[in-house]
Formats: sequence, structure tokens, C-alpha cells
Amino acid sequence: MILSALLTSVGINLGLCFLFFTLYSILRKQPSNLRVYAPRLVAERKLKQKTEFNLERLLPSAGWVKRAWELSEEDLLENSGLDGVVFMRIFTFSLKIFSVAAVIGIMILLPVNFMGSQLEIDFSDLPNKSLDSFSISNVNNGSKRLWIHFCATYAFTVAVCCLLYYEYKYLSLKRIDSYYASRPQPHQFTILVRGIPVSAEHSWDESVDNFFREYHPSTYISHTIIRRTSKLQQLTDDAAKIYRTLARMKSQEHTSQRSRYYGFLGVFGNKAQQLSKLERRLEVVEDNMRTEQSLLVGKEVPAAFVYFKSRYGAAIALHIQQGINPTEWVTEQAPEPDDVYWPFFSTSYLKRWICKLGVFVASAVLTVLFFLPVLVVQSLTHLEQLETYFPFLRSILKLAFVSQVITGYLPSLILQFFLYFIPPIMKILSSIQGYISMSEIQKSACSKMLWFTMWNVFFANVLSGSALYGFDLILEPKKVPMILAQGVPAQATFFITYVVTTGWTSLSSELFQLISLICTILRRIFSAEENDDLAVPSIPYESEIPRILFFGLLGITYFFLSPLILPFILVYFCIGYLIFQNQLLNVYAPRYDSGGKYWTIVHNSTIFSLVLMHLIAIGIFALKDLPLASTLIVPLPALTLLFNEYCRKRFLPIFSCYATECLVKKDREEQNDPRMAEFFDKLVDAYRDPALKPTLNGRDENTHSSPLLRSSEI
Amino acid sequence: MILSALLTSVGINLGLCFLFFTLYSILRKQPSNLRVYAPRLVAERKLKQKTEFNLERLLPSAGWVKRAWELSEEDLLENSGLDGVVFMRIFTFSLKIFSVAAVIGIMILLPVNFMGSQLEIDFSDLPNKSLDSFSISNVNNGSKRLWIHFCATYAFTVAVCCLLYYEYKYLSLKRIDSYYASRPQPHQFTILVRGIPVSAEHSWDESVDNFFREYHPSTYISHTIIRRTSKLQQLTDDAAKIYRTLARMKSQEHTSQRSRYYGFLGVFGNKAQQLSKLERRLEVVEDNMRTEQSLLVGKEVPAAFVYFKSRYGAAIALHIQQGINPTEWVTEQAPEPDDVYWPFFSTSYLKRWICKLGVFVASAVLTVLFFLPVLVVQSLTHLEQLETYFPFLRSILKLAFVSQVITGYLPSLILQFFLYFIPPIMKILSSIQGYISMSEIQKSACSKMLWFTMWNVFFANVLSGSALYGFDLILEPKKVPMILAQGVPAQATFFITYVVTTGWTSLSSELFQLISLICTILRRIFSAEENDDLAVPSIPYESEIPRILFFGLLGITYFFLSPLILPFILVYFCIGYLIFQNQLLNVYAPRYDSGGKYWTIVHNSTIFSLVLMHLIAIGIFALKDLPLASTLIVPLPALTLLFNEYCRKRFLPIFSCYATECLVKKDREEQNDPRMAEFFDKLVDAYRDPALKPTLNGRDENTHSSPLLRSSEI
Repeated sequence: MILSALLTSVGINLGLCFLFFTLYSILRKQPSNLRVYAPRLVAERKLKQKTEFNLERLLPSAGWVKRAWELSEEDLLENSGLDGVVFMRIFTFSLKIFSVAAVIGIMILLPVNFMGSQLEIDFSDLPNKSLDSFSISNVNNGSKRLWIHFCATYAFTVAVCCLLYYEYKYLSLKRIDSYYASRPQPHQFTILVRGIPVSAEHSWDESVDNFFREYHPSTYISHTIIRRTSKLQQLTDDAAKIYRTLARMKSQEHTSQRSRYYGFLGVFGNKAQQLSKLERRLEVVEDNMRTEQSLLVGKEVPAAFVYFKSRYGAAIALHIQQGINPTEWVTEQAPEPDDVYWPFFSTSYLKRWICKLGVFVASAVLTVLFFLPVLVVQSLTHLEQLETYFPFLRSILKLAFVSQVITGYLPSLILQFFLYFIPPIMKILSSIQGYISMSEIQKSACSKMLWFTMWNVFFANVLSGSALYGFDLILEPKKVPMILAQGVPAQATFFITYVVTTGWTSLSSELFQLISLICTILRRIFSAEENDDLAVPSIPYESEIPRILFFGLLGITYFFLSPLILPFILVYFCIGYLIFQNQLLNVYAPRYDSGGKYWTIVHNSTIFSLVLMHLIAIGIFALKDLPLASTLIVPLPALTLLFNEYCRKRFLPIFSCYATECLVKKDREEQNDPRMAEFFDKLVDAYRDPALKPTLNGRDENTHSSPLLRSSEI
Repeated sequence: MILSALLTSVGINLGLCFLFFTLYSILRKQPSNLRVYAPRLVAERKLKQKTEFNLERLLPSAGWVKRAWELSEEDLLENSGLDGVVFMRIFTFSLKIFSVAAVIGIMILLPVNFMGSQLEIDFSDLPNKSLDSFSISNVNNGSKRLWIHFCATYAFTVAVCCLLYYEYKYLSLKRIDSYYASRPQPHQFTILVRGIPVSAEHSWDESVDNFFREYHPSTYISHTIIRRTSKLQQLTDDAAKIYRTLARMKSQEHTSQRSRYYGFLGVFGNKAQQLSKLERRLEVVEDNMRTEQSLLVGKEVPAAFVYFKSRYGAAIALHIQQGINPTEWVTEQAPEPDDVYWPFFSTSYLKRWICKLGVFVASAVLTVLFFLPVLVVQSLTHLEQLETYFPFLRSILKLAFVSQVITGYLPSLILQFFLYFIPPIMKILSSIQGYISMSEIQKSACSKMLWFTMWNVFFANVLSGSALYGFDLILEPKKVPMILAQGVPAQATFFITYVVTTGWTSLSSELFQLISLICTILRRIFSAEENDDLAVPSIPYESEIPRILFFGLLGITYFFLSPLILPFILVYFCIGYLIFQNQLLNVYAPRYDSGGKYWTIVHNSTIFSLVLMHLIAIGIFALKDLPLASTLIVPLPALTLLFNEYCRKRFLPIFSCYATECLVKKDREEQNDPRMAEFFDKLVDAYRDPALKPTLNGRDENTHSSPLLRSSEI
């Protein structure tokens, strides 16, 4: 790729971004779009809905940028929880490391690369210069100047490790602070116990009670046994749906001004007839629900939520093996009540273990087989291949503009399209892995997505060029550095355009919320009702974090190979910072909080990127006839991994549980708080299965407490 | 090797064994040898020392075999602790699996192998038949009969896994039973805390007190801070040594009948002069000791033993992270008081971590570099090579007997000699790894020795034949099955003779205790005094267990390759069972007990052997033109590893700590025991550093409580 093609691509994408921003700043001011661009504020009733029209509403403005910029970390913590803070720290952390990288890369490495003559490129014609002349490939083989790259690698690694350390430390303190500041929450006093042993005399319910009364007499309060409720849940959903239709039909009888909409739907039959039919159906469903509820006692599963009088009491039961048989009385930290994922409680220890294995295999297969569409994309970037396969396209491809668009824009768009379907699949896989909380499912899906993205976008592109595919690499670790050193620099151009196209576009589409916008418009046109249940979305960490981390990986690995990528990456993180600050403020509201556990993924990913960079460096220096530098790089990955090991010991435990010091202090603070009695009264009901919550005495109550509405109200 | 050479070797070794046994049965009856062959019984005063001479003393007898055979597991548990039971279970477990293997191998596989014609050996001359005709190499390539081997592999794996499961289950129950049966012991109520944070106001001593009074008010009793005592220990040792010399010299002044021995030592100077000189030296040392003791307060290290009122209280402090910073207030289970390894307490968290790494590298280097002598040994087994290097030996080597002895006996003897020095080195390495107990050092040395033995005896022999050395294998995992399939069967003969020579000989030399016997005889001749401090040895698990497990590895891997090895292995385990039962009864006394933790090593080693066998099978079936069988074996190692993973989850936690159920039950049992008050009084002094124990008021007391004497008295 030549410089002018890159500049074309940058131009197109900057233009698109600007267009999106302008449109956004206008659209967000329209009252009808408030539910798309500020659902959170609407839900929190923080906005006055101005309906009068003025000209200002049609003019683009940059006020949102200012507000996003001014959002402080304290506000963020209050608004979006620790997970939100961690999410934004990814951007600030990346900005820090890539500022360091850009200073070294652009000031030192880029001129050194450019002054090389390995590729023998004509100096006079800058616009038509290949981008390779800015990369390490242009430095002469065996040149002493390569030692500059060598030093840069060491310096950059040290800088990143220091920043990683301070960030981990900062966030672990933040986590403890926010624990100290938190009000008493049910999940702090609750554990989940699974694998309750089968007993001839007692039911599981009695077993749990006996066991904890026996071994935790001073701290045990009560427990809730878990029951198999999937059928009841289904019935409840049905009933809620019928009831809502009924309610809507009845309200339409009273309000005449909306009947023209209903007339549109009225073609399906006589209204009164329909009403009585629906009411009969509702009665049948409710009868079934009653039968199902009476059967529930027999549907106990060997799992229960156990409540304790203190956080420390719960921690003791959590951390010490309870039963002699380690597969019985298995304890786990309870998730927040809203975070519980109910369907998977009924499975046994062995079954969950097999599910886990199955999911592992399935996600590995998905990751590897996804390869094929990527290969197609890859082939598009080589115009000559395209011309041979489709000879009739030759005349079109000859046009300079078309060829530039194809090489610069189309491939990553197709890739993007395929990638769009992966996060939901990964989330489904994670959910059958046996996790008990939605947040853990999301976190696991996030890791899976990260591996997926790295493999399918990075490695697939790098390896397909050198005709050596995945599995061979695993079986021949000796060749890894060489293969990477051949493959990675060759794809520099592809990844620079990837950052410019996919990276920038994904950010502006995040801001613009195109799909949500179209849905709202369609609903406004076709739907009769003013939809009362506003669903405030929560940020989809499982797709956003891997994407952001992938750009981090690109930046780190290409830092010394092709420093030209760095400014584009910096732009990505700058725009990303602003946009996501804005989105967290206006759009997303957290449903549950993992307490910043996502940072462990960020940390590991950064370490992985560093080690990958070192492996490439080992290969590159060997290829460039500088075997001494190649050997001297070897300690660097080892030291980086040791640093990681130290961080694991120093910080990871803080992210997995709280220490005695914290727990006891927190318990003592609240010892004499009169409000605690009320809290404990509520605690016992905190973990009732949503399917068991509706009482069927009055229908209004039923609808309001129906799980369907509840979940969308949150 | 031909059959007759093997029979020669078997004959020589059976003869040697019989000779050793006969000598043993005579020598053990001599009163002067009681301290060699029954030190344990002597120490426990269970033997009447008969001094009158009778003829029976000179006749060999088999009474010891009967007594060893009759020793029940209950007696063993009482005599030698759970570790002794686990040790003997290795033999019974091995006998079980190799009985199964022998039935399949000798009845089915051996005839199948013998009927093959791949090696084209003449059928008529059985004595000169190569041993290879009994191995899988003789089965024709692509023959359908190989499916018999395939089925045998599956059947054997299933059998071994079942036995492993029941053994693990049995031993974990045994461990819990023996915990229930145990009397209160200090280490059950004590934890070790390290990484006490530095505080400006408080000393470490005060910090510990404050911390545990704050966070464990109801269970904390007291603590003992650890001090840097290596210098004091040195001085105490010196003082004890001088004092003993003094005491001996003084006693010789009174007892005239021994003065002729003293005359022998008396050449060094005037007696009175010497006495006064020694006394002055003792005073100086004691002065230094006093100074050192007064300085001790300033030599605190950030570590302490903390005592609790209940086992459960100690477990709570042990299992829950104490400080917010996970590298501070690190808790560990305290070892038994006699099991504490004092020197390594003063090191910091980071230093210990670096030591661990260093030791890991050092033991890896030792394991790999030991290769060289093994290669020399290997070259000896090829007579032709020996003849080319040393042409003058040619005439001797031509003699049939010499050549048979060299191929059959010498190589493994040389190897054995080298191996003799490794366990002490491994133990030293383990001791600088930062373990706090002797038993853990021993266990870690045991693992190291196991890897060492496997690598240097098994892999070095297997790989040197195929000219491909260690590191290549690690870097090219794809080739592993092929290389093993080429190398392993080729060494079948070597390993059969290895079992017959090294295996059997090591057992009889264990029984005969040659070195100990020679030492006793020499001491009786040259030493004046009747040595009062009888040192009862404890069984050197770190060298015995790896050796035994290695024969297990050989049996498992060669089971389907060369079933001829199985009878010899069975003989090894039979003799071993009898001899070690006898030794545990008469010779060894346990110093400390790890509670059967060695079984985890046995389990892992057996799983490793199985997977190794599967890898070889994959390679062999591919080599033998039966690719389908090769593919169908692949699930077997995966399933075996899954089985191992299940066992890790099901049983391993039982071996690392005790559950709430156990702890609370045990605590309640003793709640009202009046003897517990006395126990807690003693508990506070249980973990005093031995260097701090002597009081210097009276010298007699000093000598008696000196650590040197104490440790040898145990």
C-alpha cells in the first residue's frame, strides 16, 4: 500500500466520523430520540422533556464533548460502579502507554527506519512511497541501527510494566475503598452452597438447616433452597404477556384518541370476542401456575443460598472446605440478587464439570473454524488474486479509486460484519458453562471474545500470509518467533488501515447507535402504545473490552515494527475516551457490578501483547542478521512473565475476595446500626427465585411484580 | 541380548539376594549388630540383650520374613504413622496392578509376540534367541494381531484407573480417621504468619499481638515471634561439643579401665593442661552466647507462630486472607514442632520467591547435565563401541562370560553409583527453597528425585539411542510419539536387566544396611566410649519412593511392548514388600508425619506413566502400519487426564487441609476435657527456637537440653 492510499482511507474515515458526530449532536437534541441517546437520564427522570421547537435544535453543537470531558472519576464511580471506572481506565492507561510509545516510535524509530535502504525505494516520490519504507523492514540487514530498536523494546517494556503496576495498585485500592464505602448489600452476607449430600432421613432443605446450625451456630440466620422453576417461569411469562395485551385492549376502550391505531390492528376480529377469549386463556395459564407451584416442593435441587449475620461469618463458610468430601457442600460467593442466573442451578457437580469441558471445546472450535471467512477477507486485500478469480471485474478494479477503496476499506468491513455475531454466541456458550451470575457469564464471554479476536484477526492474518496455519505452530514452538517475524511486519499495512477503518468507525457507530435509532423510529411508526417499560441498556463489556484491548495489542506489537500505526491508535483512544465517557453518562446504566474484576483481563492481555512483541523481536533480529540482539531479547519475556507472576501474587487476591481486615472492620461499623435489623429482615427474601415471587391474589399485583416487567424496569 | 545372558544375570542376582538374606538372618542375631538391624527396637527398649552364646545364633533362619509378613496395617499405622502406611501401600498397589498386567501380558501378549515373524529369528535355538522376539517388535507390521495389544492397552488403563481411585479413596478416609483418632497436637492449634508489616510505632512482636487481638479476639491465645538465631545456634553447638569432650575427659579420670584407650588419644598433650584450656574456651563461648542472647530482641524477623484456642480458630486464620495486602500477614499451617526447619525464617517474601525460582532452575540444570555419565554408561552396553575405543580390551571382551557380565550387570551398577549422590543434593536444594518444615523439604526433594530419575534413567537411555536429545523434544511435541516409539522398545533389554540388577540389589542392600554395618564395626574398634545417643534413622522417602515409582513406570510403559519384564517387576515388589515391612518394624522410626501426602506423588507418577504408555502406543501403532489403532488410542490419554483432574477435585483437598466438619467435631470432643488446660499451657512453649532453649544456670542442664543431643535423641 502506498502513502496516498492510506491518506485516502484516513480522509474517508475522518469525514465519516465528523459526519456521525455532527448528526449525533443534532439528533440527540430531538425529544423523540431521547430514549435512544439518553435512556439513562430519562429513566432517572433527570431530563425535562422540552417539546417546543426552536432553531437551536437543528444546529450541531459540541456541548456533549465538554460534558463528557468534564466527567470526573468520582462521578463515574457513583454512576457506573467500579466496572465503569475500570472500563474508562483502559482508555487512560492505553493513552499513557501509547504516548510513551509514540514519543519513542515517531521521534526515534521512524526516522531510523526511513533512512534505511533495504527496500531500495526511490526517495523523490513521497505520495507513492510504500508504507513499508517507514517500517523496520527498510533498515539494512545487520545494521548497527537495529540496536536502537533493541533499546526501544527494553525501554517500552519497562515503561509499560511500571504503568501496569501502578494501575493495578490504584485499582485495587479503589476496590477496597468502594467496599468500605458500600452500604450493606445482601450478597455480602450470603453464600451459595451446592452439592448438598443426599440423605435418607432429611430433605435437602432440612439438611442445609441442620448442617449450618451445627457448624455455624453463631452466625447462621437462614437459607433459601433452590427449586427447579423453568416450567413455572415459562407459565409466568405467558401470563404476563396475556395480561399486558388484555390491559392494553381495555385501556383502548376508554381512550378514544388512539383508536385509529387500533383500527389498524382491529382487522383480526371482534374486540369483545377477543377479550373474552384472552381472559379464558389467562385463567387456564393461571390454573397451570397454581398446579405447578403446588408441585414445587418436590422440585428441590441440591443448592441453597445461606444467609449469615455478618460478612465475616459468610467468609468463613466460604473459604473453609465444609464437608469432608470436597465435592459436597461446595460453597461459592453469592452474586448480587439481580445478578443471579437461575437456569443452571439444577445441575450436579459432575454435569457442570462436563459442561465446562464441552464449552471449552466448543469455543475453541468456533475460534478456529471462524478462520475461513477471514481467509476470504484476506484474499480481497490482494487485488491480483481477485482479478484472477473474477476476470470480469478487471476493468473496474483498474480504476484507482475503486482499488484504493477495496484495499483500504472493504476487507475490514466484511470482517466486522462477521464479528458482529460472535459476542452473543460466546455469551450463550458461557451461560451453559455453569456460572451462577450474569456478571461472571459476561466476564467469561469477554475472555473468550478476546482470544477469539486475537486469533482470528491477528494470527489468522499474520499466518495466512506465510501459508502456515494454526495447529502447526502449537506443535512446533521452536519456529514461532521466525514465523511471526516473517508474518507480522508483512501485515503492517493491513492493520494500519484496520485501525483507521474498523477502529474509528466502530467508535462513531457506538456514539450514533444506528440500530437502536432505527428500532425506535420503526416502533414509533407501527406500534400503537407509548411503551412504558424503558429498557436502559448496560454496557456490553463482552464485546467492547476485547475490541479495545485488541487495538492495544496492535499498538504494542507494531510499536517497533511500524511506528506509523501509533498516531492512529492514539487518535482511536482519544475519541474512544470521549465517546464512552458520554455514553456512560447518558446511555448505559450498570445492572450489576463485578467490582472491577475486568482489570485482570486487561492486565493479562497487556502482558500477552508484550510477550508477543518480544517473540517477534527475537525473530526479527535473527532475520536482520543481528543474532546477538536476538539472544539478548530472550530474558525480556522471562522477566515480563515474572513481573506478571508477582502482580498475580500481589494484587489478584484483592480482586477475588476481601481480607479479614476489611470484613471485620465493616462488620463492626454496622454492629450498632439500628437499620441493620430491617436489613436482615429483608435479606431472607433477597434471593427468592423470580418465578416464585408473583402472588396470584390480585391481578394487578401479578402484572406489576411479574418478572418480565421487573427485569425491564431495572 | 539373548535369553541365556538374561538368565545368567537373573541367576547372579538371585544368588546375591539369597546370600544377602542368609547373611542378614545370621548377622541380625548378633547382639553387637542390634544397633544396625533393630535400632528402633533398641531405642524403644523392646529387646532383651542376650549376651550368652548359642549355636542358633550362627544358623540362618526365616523368622523375620514371617514377622514382616504378619505385620498388619493397624500396627504399621501405630508404628510408622500414615506416611509408613502410604509407603507400604505403594507396594501393595503396585502388586495389584502388575498382577493384572502380568495376567494380560504373559498369558495373551507374550504368545502373540512370539508367534510373529517380523524379526525372522530361527525358532529352534531358544537359549540364543534374542529377547526382542518376545516383544512387540516381533509382531508383523500391519498384522491384525496388533488389535490385541490395542485392547490390552485400554483394559489395563481402565484397571489401573479403578485401582487408583479406590486407593485414593481408601487413603483419604484413612487420613481423616487418623485425624479423628489423634490426640491434641500443637501444630493443629498453631499457624505460622509471615510478612508482618513494618510499623513505625510497634515492634513486630507488638504488631502480631495487636493484630490477632483485634481480628481474632475469641480464639487467639498467644504467639512466639521468630528471631534470627543462626549465630546463637552455632555457639550453642560449639559449647555442647566442648562440654561433651570435657565430660568424657573427666569421666576417664575416674574410670581407670578405659584409660588404655585414652592413652591412644593422650599423645596430643598433657591432660590437665588440656582440661583447663578447654574450660577456658567453654567460658568464652558461653560469654558470647550470653551477649548474643541479649542482642536477640533486636533480631526479630517478621514471622511468628500464633496459637489459637481451637483447631477451627486456627483454620479460620489460615484460610482467609488476613491483611488487605496479600503479601502481608501471609498465613501457613504450622508444622509439627520437631518438624520445623528454622534457618529459613528470616527471608522476605520476595527473597523466598527468588530462591524458589533459583532452585527450580538449579534442579532443572542438575537434572539435564547429569545426562553425561548416563551416556557413558549407555555406551558400555554396546560392546562393539567399547572395543573400538579400547582396542586392548578386545581379547577379554571376547570371553562370553565377561561380555555377559558387562552387558548385564556393570552398566546399571555405575549408574547406581552416580545416583547415590543425588538425593542429598536435591534435599539441599529443596531446603533453600523456603520451606518451613523438614517434611515438606523431604516431599519436595522426593518430587525432584522422581523427575530426575525418570529423565536420567528412562528418557536419557531412550533418547540417546535415537540420537535426539532432550531439548528438541520439548520444542517439537509433534514428533514425541514417534521418537518414543522408536527409542523405548529398543531399550527393553536394558531395562529388564536394570530391574534384575539394580532393582533386586537395591532391595537386598537396603536389608543388609552395609554402610551402617561397616560404620558400627569401625566405631567399635576405634572409639573409646559406648555411644549413648542412639540415632534411630527415619526412612529416606526422598530416595526410596522415586526409586520404587520408577520401577512402576518401567512396568507400565513396557507392559504391552515387552511383557517379559513383568515377572521381574512382580518379584521386585514382592521382595520389596517383605523387606520394607521388616525395616519399618525394626529399623526406621518416623520423626514427623506428613499425613500421607506422599500418595499424591504416587498418584501423579502413575498417571504420568499411563500417559507415557499411551504416547508410545500412538507411535508404535503408527510405526507398525496400523494408523487406525494409532488414532483410536488418542482419546485414552485425554480420558486418563480427565480422570486425574476428577481425582484432584475429589481427593486432593482432603490431603491439603481438614474440613469444617472434622475440625468442629474434634474441637467439641475436647471441649470439656480437663487435660486441655494443661495442653494449652504447654502449647505456648511448643515452638521455641531450639537455640533459645538452653538455660545457662547449670552446665548439666545446658548439655542435656542442647539441640545437638536433642535432635539425635528423637
